[in-house]
Amino acid sequence: MRIAVVAPVWFPVPPSGYGGIELIVSLLADGLVDAGHDVTLFASGGSHTKAELISPMPEPPDPREVGNAWYDGYHALSAYMQMDGFDVVHDHAGIVGPICGAMLMGRPPVVHTLHGPWTPQTRLFYGRAAQHVHLVAISEAQRRDNEDVAYAGTVYNGIHVESYPFRADKDDVLVYIGRSNPDKGPKEAINIARRAGLPLQMLLKRGEQPEREYFEHEVEPLLSSDIELFENVTNEEKVELLGRACAMIFPIRWPEPFGLVMVEAMACGTPVVTTNWGSAPEVVEDGVTGFRRDGDDDLVHALGEVRTLDPADCRARVERLFSAQSMVRGYEQVYAGTMVP
Amino acid sequence: MRIAVVAPVWFPVPPSGYGGIELIVSLLADGLVDAGHDVTLFASGGSHTKAELISPMPEPPDPREVGNAWYDGYHALSAYMQMDGFDVVHDHAGIVGPICGAMLMGRPPVVHTLHGPWTPQTRLFYGRAAQHVHLVAISEAQRRDNEDVAYAGTVYNGIHVESYPFRADKDDVLVYIGRSNPDKGPKEAINIARRAGLPLQMLLKRGEQPEREYFEHEVEPLLSSDIELFENVTNEEKVELLGRACAMIFPIRWPEPFGLVMVEAMACGTPVVTTNWGSAPEVVEDGVTGFRRDGDDDLVHALGEVRTLDPADCRARVERLFSAQSMVRGYEQVYAGTMVP
Repeated sequence: MRIAVVAPVWFPVPPSGYGGIELIVSLLADGLVDAGHDVTLFASGGSHTKAELISPMPEPPDPREVGNAWYDGYHALSAYMQMDGFDVVHDHAGIVGPICGAMLMGRPPVVHTLHGPWTPQTRLFYGRAAQHVHLVAISEAQRRDNEDVAYAGTVYNGIHVESYPFRADKDDVLVYIGRSNPDKGPKEAINIARRAGLPLQMLLKRGEQPEREYFEHEVEPLLSSDIELFENVTNEEKVELLGRACAMIFPIRWPEPFGLVMVEAMACGTPVVTTNWGSAPEVVEDGVTGFRRDGDDDLVHALGEVRTLDPADCRARVERLFSAQSMVRGYEQVYAGTMVP
Repeated sequence: MRIAVVAPVWFPVPPSGYGGIELIVSLLADGLVDAGHDVTLFASGGSHTKAELISPMPEPPDPREVGNAWYDGYHALSAYMQMDGFDVVHDHAGIVGPICGAMLMGRPPVVHTLHGPWTPQTRLFYGRAAQHVHLVAISEAQRRDNEDVAYAGTVYNGIHVESYPFRADKDDVLVYIGRSNPDKGPKEAINIARRAGLPLQMLLKRGEQPEREYFEHEVEPLLSSDIELFENVTNEEKVELLGRACAMIFPIRWPEPFGLVMVEAMACGTPVVTTNWGSAPEVVEDGVTGFRRDGDDDLVHALGEVRTLDPADCRARVERLFSAQSMVRGYEQVYAGTMVP
């Protein structure tokens, strides 16, 4: 198939630092090429891909401009003016992407992945866009959270499993990865780890102002020698943290559409102790690749049981459900479904 | 002609309070109906128009959501899905409007009015959009400020002249209307009025946070009994302020694409003392409907000369160049130009 993949404008593909969507887009574009498709990636300059690259923006906008819709508009409009001859367009851009996609009126069909959570605003907008583009959810939880739009399918995000070394031999230490905000529960992670009597290594994203404030007012006062903080680590350092830990503690309290860090932990053979929010029940198999518990008491208790779980089961689940290859196969099915005879 | 007019989503048409674009859109849609066209206005609920009204949003978004692109996207996409059968679309919406317009690929042709100033971001975006939509400038100054895009024409904003009572009998008082920010020069207006020995009545918009801060730190300390402040006045009170003043002092210092308040003052027979920035040289005829001077000293001096000007000349200039009817005629010409035989 001739496939056009449209990335967001804000970061290169793959991203050099933060950029969850750009990472998924990179794996997908490369994976589609590996599967024999003719792929063109529309992404900002500085991107590296096995696909043919077209960059309306010679470099990504200044990071302070992230969210400035003029850039989004320029990038998406420039890309969508070049869609003649493609069999399908796969859009990952913000608001302007699905709008341009809808305006193509099916020539060619447009698949759009819902990377974000449902809000009153996105429900309104996608309620309209869903009549003209093929929406893909990234978890059943995300899909259940809005049953008022049509979905072309559910495709889990995937990772490049080979980049995550499996490690069965664990240290008596917990790991946490996430933004510094109330939804992700870094404060709760500290309290739970401490009550479980285990030291905690935290990779905490706190680059944005609200994250810095939450860190300063809510997290920092709790720190002492049993908590080790990391920020801006290399990928090697990250997988080392993930692989050595006897468990990831991830006490989220919001309907996260897909928790990629849980998949990363399991790939390294590390079970995940989390809640039942959002996609967690789809990602973590309770009692096999981690524990899902509601309430801090039960999470503390679950941490005492993680040594009973087999790291190999964690890895196997990721290989089966959350690899780049399974993501590519999922999207191939969605694309095929758009080809109405 | 069958004409679709697309308003921004944020306020009803006409606006109940602030909303410069919505006021222009209202006059234009009504004027096009009066001129015999078949007009459909796409605008948020609560709008009142002589045209047929279609409201994707049953009411405008909460004012705190102004600028939230999901609403812009919903409104514009909903509107542009209904453009079959129109001879021309006239777009006034933000970023998503011209994007949808470009995606129509000329079926029907889309005219987009540039209501804002040129910035690095708008130059980039419209550089692309101009290849697919017909851009209209609202002044020659705006057009000169970016000669890298093609224009379908220049059409000045118009006012409903009949709503501005002419008054030849003036009081010894100045008037200022504008936002409280450095570009608009409220601080300079106070200093210049005071040096000219004339009291000043200021209609100051300061609803947004930066406007409030500028007022508090820069304007408020200058106030004394010779300055009278107004906010949120009725239209009757506004034209009363405009008509009684012997001059409007409007010391702008930014390239404003079109200074509508200067037109409103002149309609009431009130000359305008301003700078040479932006559209001022097109709006104010120096020595006839006001004075244009650079530098506070010369502005003070000019205020001493305003009694030599004829209020009837001010009114006549507005009737000739800045009426709703002349705006409608200007756009009719632009629409005709899009009809390639």
